[in-house]
Amino acid sequence: MKAIVFDGRLNYREDCPLPKPDKAGDALIRVRIAGICNTDLEIVKGYMGFRGIPGHEFVGTVEKVNERNKSLAGKRVVGEINCVCGVCDYCTGGLSRHCPERTTLGISGRDGAFAEYLTLPAENLHEVPGNVSDEEAVFAEPLAAAFEIVEQVNIKPTDRIIVLGDGKLGLLCAFVLALTGAETMLAGNHEHKLAIAREAGIGTCLARDLPVDKRQDVVVEATGTPAGLQKALECVRPRGTVVLKSTVASTREVDLNKVVIDEVTLIGSRCGPFEPALRALSDRAINVMPLISGIFPVGDALEAFKAAGQKGSLKILIDFR
Amino acid sequence: MKAIVFDGRLNYREDCPLPKPDKAGDALIRVRIAGICNTDLEIVKGYMGFRGIPGHEFVGTVEKVNERNKSLAGKRVVGEINCVCGVCDYCTGGLSRHCPERTTLGISGRDGAFAEYLTLPAENLHEVPGNVSDEEAVFAEPLAAAFEIVEQVNIKPTDRIIVLGDGKLGLLCAFVLALTGAETMLAGNHEHKLAIAREAGIGTCLARDLPVDKRQDVVVEATGTPAGLQKALECVRPRGTVVLKSTVASTREVDLNKVVIDEVTLIGSRCGPFEPALRALSDRAINVMPLISGIFPVGDALEAFKAAGQKGSLKILIDFR
Repeated sequence: MKAIVFDGRLNYREDCPLPKPDKAGDALIRVRIAGICNTDLEIVKGYMGFRGIPGHEFVGTVEKVNERNKSLAGKRVVGEINCVCGVCDYCTGGLSRHCPERTTLGISGRDGAFAEYLTLPAENLHEVPGNVSDEEAVFAEPLAAAFEIVEQVNIKPTDRIIVLGDGKLGLLCAFVLALTGAETMLAGNHEHKLAIAREAGIGTCLARDLPVDKRQDVVVEATGTPAGLQKALECVRPRGTVVLKSTVASTREVDLNKVVIDEVTLIGSRCGPFEPALRALSDRAINVMPLISGIFPVGDALEAFKAAGQKGSLKILIDFR
Repeated sequence: MKAIVFDGRLNYREDCPLPKPDKAGDALIRVRIAGICNTDLEIVKGYMGFRGIPGHEFVGTVEKVNERNKSLAGKRVVGEINCVCGVCDYCTGGLSRHCPERTTLGISGRDGAFAEYLTLPAENLHEVPGNVSDEEAVFAEPLAAAFEIVEQVNIKPTDRIIVLGDGKLGLLCAFVLALTGAETMLAGNHEHKLAIAREAGIGTCLARDLPVDKRQDVVVEATGTPAGLQKALECVRPRGTVVLKSTVASTREVDLNKVVIDEVTLIGSRCGPFEPALRALSDRAINVMPLISGIFPVGDALEAFKAAGQKGSLKILIDFR
């Protein structure tokens, strides 16, 4: 099959063997579209020491599935990326996405979605509603990560919120937070990206104009930079909440004294629930289409990666159809 | 009056002028006993750039007070250390301890408790119950800081908790957390300090024997070291809570990636509510007496500071009576 393989450098290959479902519950999925995430760009720089087929944002069609989940056969699906043991204390205690035995699609211990076929446990799959296009459905995974914020933090409709960072994840976070009715502002450096938020009715400002008045109830750090976290700590009110939405931001260059003095809550946020993400797409509560910067056929996958790394670029999709 | 003054170095003086209440609501208090806190030891090293009379843990007697608060006259009191404007958004919004105009007794913009007399707004004062001795009452401020944890975090009786650091604050935090019914363990390096916790029925272990099994629901960082925060992040379970109880710990030497990947909540915690602290002392729910390492008469105040800085020392008190 055609696939992108990372073995220290990124290669496009047409002779990759088909993945074999390694557990009885694994389904074989034919990928329709896959999306390039910033994590993929980091993986190509060595993040997580991953080797193999990267990619974890996809929409595909179930080609093979076991008897118990046969209702999924032939269905268009998206999939949760953490593959867990199902029996440990974490899995049985409601923390399965944190299972210490987990593999993660295209990120850790498991080949991913930049290929014609992938495998995932059947219980990781979610059927895509008929009115959601492939191009929209491929956003289910990052949109779920944005919904994780409201899963973790009790956002009040009277809250003042700033999202720092007008990249893909920042925009999706702003979309989700604006649904709560809270006054939501997106701060970034790219006029054309901020315009997408304004189009959705969300207030915007240039990051350099951001008021550092310690009046925000919630600040979401989605810049992926230490400066972003520092800025977040300057904007948030005493006893307010800073959501860390990016691992890249979590470096050692930030002074945490302010966290103690202002009694700030810093909360790390990673993968999230797919159901509300698919519902928001199906209900047209969130429009992800303006986030697509380009769609490349699989043969041009290396070009797609280059495009995704360009400054100013938003979501780049790879089309396997 | 007799006082300890920090002007770049620490001096004992007997000729200090009496403090003048600078607002109509300020009360004049004759100090009975004051306690030396680690923050005082930091101030003497330059923390906060403070100059003047340090000290913020005290019990005293009200000598002068305005008509409206005259019921306090002659009473034995302890006092909240943040002096606030009372009219800003923070003050009127339930965040008065974070008032940006605040001065803080013996820490910022206001002379403190290492003197025969101090002034504080009358509304900062709490009468000490008759059955609480001066030696116990002087712990009201740090004990309130320990109670701040349960003010901020919903501790469940089924939680597993580790307090890192067997210093004064770590011990007080362990005392308070054990009241919740949760399984509480104190980890430290000093056998004689851990013994105080065991005497109170709290489990202990040496820090080096601490299991790094990511099974703790709540970890309180009270070591005041970056290594403590790193250790806290290794002990806490995914989606668990780390309480930062010390500004000293909040340096730049800690990698926050784990906060995001494990979706940990990091929460800064500072001053706390006095009422539950006084209640716990009066009800004999918490016994602070074993934490006293020494009581020095005011004339030996500089000796007291030296003793407080000794390895292995717990609370050193200065007696003005």
